[in-house]
Amino acid sequence: MAIELKNLTKRSENYSQWYNELVVKADLAEQSAVRGCMVIKPYGYAIWEKMQRQLDDMFKATGHVNAYFPLLIPKSFLSREADHVEGFAKECAVVTHYRLKNDPNGNGVVVDPEARLEEELIIRPTSETIIWNTYKNWIKSYRDLPILCNQWANVFRWEMRTRMFLRTAEFLWQEGHTAHATSEEAIEEAKKMLGVYADFAEKYMAVPVIKGVKSANERFAGAIETFTIEAMMQDGKALQSGTSHFLGQNFAKAFDVKFINKNNELEYVWATSWGVSTRLMGALIMTHSDDNGLVLPPHLAPIQVVIVPIYKTADQLKVIDDKVAPVVDALRAMGVSVKYDNADNKRPGFKFADYELKGVPVRLALGARDIENGTIEVMRRDTLEKQTVEFAGIENYVKNLLEEIQTNIFNKALKHRESMTTTVETYDEFKEQIEKGGFILAHWDGTPETEEKIKEETKATIRCIPLDGDKTPGRCMVTGRPSAQRVVFARNY
Amino acid sequence: MAIELKNLTKRSENYSQWYNELVVKADLAEQSAVRGCMVIKPYGYAIWEKMQRQLDDMFKATGHVNAYFPLLIPKSFLSREADHVEGFAKECAVVTHYRLKNDPNGNGVVVDPEARLEEELIIRPTSETIIWNTYKNWIKSYRDLPILCNQWANVFRWEMRTRMFLRTAEFLWQEGHTAHATSEEAIEEAKKMLGVYADFAEKYMAVPVIKGVKSANERFAGAIETFTIEAMMQDGKALQSGTSHFLGQNFAKAFDVKFINKNNELEYVWATSWGVSTRLMGALIMTHSDDNGLVLPPHLAPIQVVIVPIYKTADQLKVIDDKVAPVVDALRAMGVSVKYDNADNKRPGFKFADYELKGVPVRLALGARDIENGTIEVMRRDTLEKQTVEFAGIENYVKNLLEEIQTNIFNKALKHRESMTTTVETYDEFKEQIEKGGFILAHWDGTPETEEKIKEETKATIRCIPLDGDKTPGRCMVTGRPSAQRVVFARNY
Repeated sequence: MAIELKNLTKRSENYSQWYNELVVKADLAEQSAVRGCMVIKPYGYAIWEKMQRQLDDMFKATGHVNAYFPLLIPKSFLSREADHVEGFAKECAVVTHYRLKNDPNGNGVVVDPEARLEEELIIRPTSETIIWNTYKNWIKSYRDLPILCNQWANVFRWEMRTRMFLRTAEFLWQEGHTAHATSEEAIEEAKKMLGVYADFAEKYMAVPVIKGVKSANERFAGAIETFTIEAMMQDGKALQSGTSHFLGQNFAKAFDVKFINKNNELEYVWATSWGVSTRLMGALIMTHSDDNGLVLPPHLAPIQVVIVPIYKTADQLKVIDDKVAPVVDALRAMGVSVKYDNADNKRPGFKFADYELKGVPVRLALGARDIENGTIEVMRRDTLEKQTVEFAGIENYVKNLLEEIQTNIFNKALKHRESMTTTVETYDEFKEQIEKGGFILAHWDGTPETEEKIKEETKATIRCIPLDGDKTPGRCMVTGRPSAQRVVFARNY
Repeated sequence: MAIELKNLTKRSENYSQWYNELVVKADLAEQSAVRGCMVIKPYGYAIWEKMQRQLDDMFKATGHVNAYFPLLIPKSFLSREADHVEGFAKECAVVTHYRLKNDPNGNGVVVDPEARLEEELIIRPTSETIIWNTYKNWIKSYRDLPILCNQWANVFRWEMRTRMFLRTAEFLWQEGHTAHATSEEAIEEAKKMLGVYADFAEKYMAVPVIKGVKSANERFAGAIETFTIEAMMQDGKALQSGTSHFLGQNFAKAFDVKFINKNNELEYVWATSWGVSTRLMGALIMTHSDDNGLVLPPHLAPIQVVIVPIYKTADQLKVIDDKVAPVVDALRAMGVSVKYDNADNKRPGFKFADYELKGVPVRLALGARDIENGTIEVMRRDTLEKQTVEFAGIENYVKNLLEEIQTNIFNKALKHRESMTTTVETYDEFKEQIEKGGFILAHWDGTPETEEKIKEETKATIRCIPLDGDKTPGRCMVTGRPSAQRVVFARNY
């Protein structure tokens, strides 16, 4: 019983190992035969599907449509935007041939040297280049703008150190690519989508995030401005959870995309791009889970409620089955996803541990004594508290409890973040504090040099210059030069 | 007004050109900068999304779950199954390097020769190999079976001659991969999923299909048996629209996937795989559309109803706006997707032609005279018939009309197929008939040689050995040898 569970490393012992084990034990994902690429298992994928569906609805509600652009990008496209090629050329998968042939020596198949491509193709690390090459044909006049496209796709970056969900060579994501007639409209779009990401993170993932702007060092390759949402994991490290870029006219210039504006002048188009990926799964897991396994927010849990019968005889089970059936129907009618696990080949204790490991938010258990007493046992995964409540009206009780859990885990994460956020005045204080982890709010002189020095000496980076909150100016903790506002530092994933 | 539309080639003039033009003019897809790869535009993708959603619901209703497996497959995996490598090695995209670097001569970026992979990776043409390599770790005992996984993914086959949706190098699809304890169960699964495909084609796409078994020549590389659904296009050519394979133990043997069966014996696992792709978009377009543009089945149309106001003054428009608003609400409440197009920058005639081109099933038009008379004009896209009906109760009228159109276009396609299906006794008759197109039911001796001869001499292939219908034995039209039943021949896409 629950043998696997017993082997889960505790967070306090080794947080990193706890995470790696949990991903595998909770059946979310596993390493594949291809270096750096994971298999997303059905339970993990079911969570991702719920994320996708919700995000997709939110994108459509803000006027976006989906489309699909090619997986492969001609090598020369990457070079068109100077910063972009620097950022992405170093870690890409290159297709050089289009055919295999039988090995003349009889050892399986080999690359056919005659099938070499004239120009190599790159598996998309991101799609700005191929998309702007396409938009060129879609845009003639301001009447064709804005274009508000999103794509759900796989992308590939040849990362050297990979961790499941957090950093994998292939990952799944969505990438929005929009085209606008004015700079103001594009900036507004980039900020709007950052807001969508923040809403999604907080309301669905129950992960509190700080919205901010990236420093030049941390900007997307090819962007004028990168907006970001930053979350705090339980070990005090930051996780960048979504970014939205104002690209200015950089890609329009690189791909020669002009339009006739309202004044009848030819002008380059303004762009944004924005994306979140399966990395969000990592944020979700690391924010809420505990030493017993996953803790899932009810709004994204594939199974929100599990019901386990406790019985000795087939007759007892029959009675419980009959009692449970209308509850299952009523919960489903309320839009709650519920599983009645009356499988005979596993004991209740094993089931309990398994659903705990998998993070099912609410577990109901019903035995002979409950039937007699008109009660049912309720266990909530977030606090692991058990309670015996009246059977009558259990549907509404559960429905309310799910919302309570959603709120509770968000508040818990927020409290944790607040307890891990400090304000420092001096670089000495900073160096002491950074060893304890967490977000540090400090003044910075705005130069890449100072940022680089801090990174080298402390491994901390500027996570963002926050959009909201205190904007009091001060003096850089390192150089003493003027600082417009405190920025957020942390070590990060 | 409707300038683009006027340029659409007529089907009778050049069916193939009509198709190519329609795909572009109706904003479904366009060629990309990468040979053989298309961009699926938002309107085309919206149709594909509706297909996906419906298929996904049907897969889940039959007990399947989604997962995600890597895009790249180690080259050696392909060689493990002898037939499979023959079928797929010849047309694959090969990744040989993992990095680019700046060209020492200053010409952009070049492949870094030092970043050569030890073993080349193939972009998946289909995923049996990587999935069965994964299943090896998931399956120990009959208790782990069945595994019923599906994946929505992009795949890549280096096709020499491509046509949008029908045959592209990269395409989108779903691939189901199931693992079973017995041969019987696997065959049942393969047939069940063929049934799901046939239901989807007929009830949602309104495309009648023949269910059957492929001859050995046309079988999937690595399958024991391939089941297929075959549709008839308006030009009398067949389109294979979905396949479901019984793979026997071939992939289990290739990847050494064994399980302990109920008799406590070690046995190889039984497999199926099944897939449909963006090719279905081609079937949808070619089955129903006409010289005015797309005709979409209401069950898959992104916009089912469009309402166009006919007005001269802003006051008139205001009156129409107010009249239409509750109709829009009522239709949406009934689950009908409706667009009220009161955009001021296009004339009604242009809008009419555009929505005709895009295949919107029902168009409503409302003018000042209609308001006076309490009427509204209804145009149905399938027959292009216009009718003036009472405004009161228009919601129910439209709802019923959508179902009527769905049924009508299916029946029209079925009638067309029946009119294009002939039964022949002799090979001479066959050769004459095949020039006229359509399905030909004829006796065949069951040998690959005879099939090959017919293909060479007439360009016709055996589309399938039908599962349903007449099973009377006879004599092969070519060799006179015994034939168990008539099979379906056609020229095909």
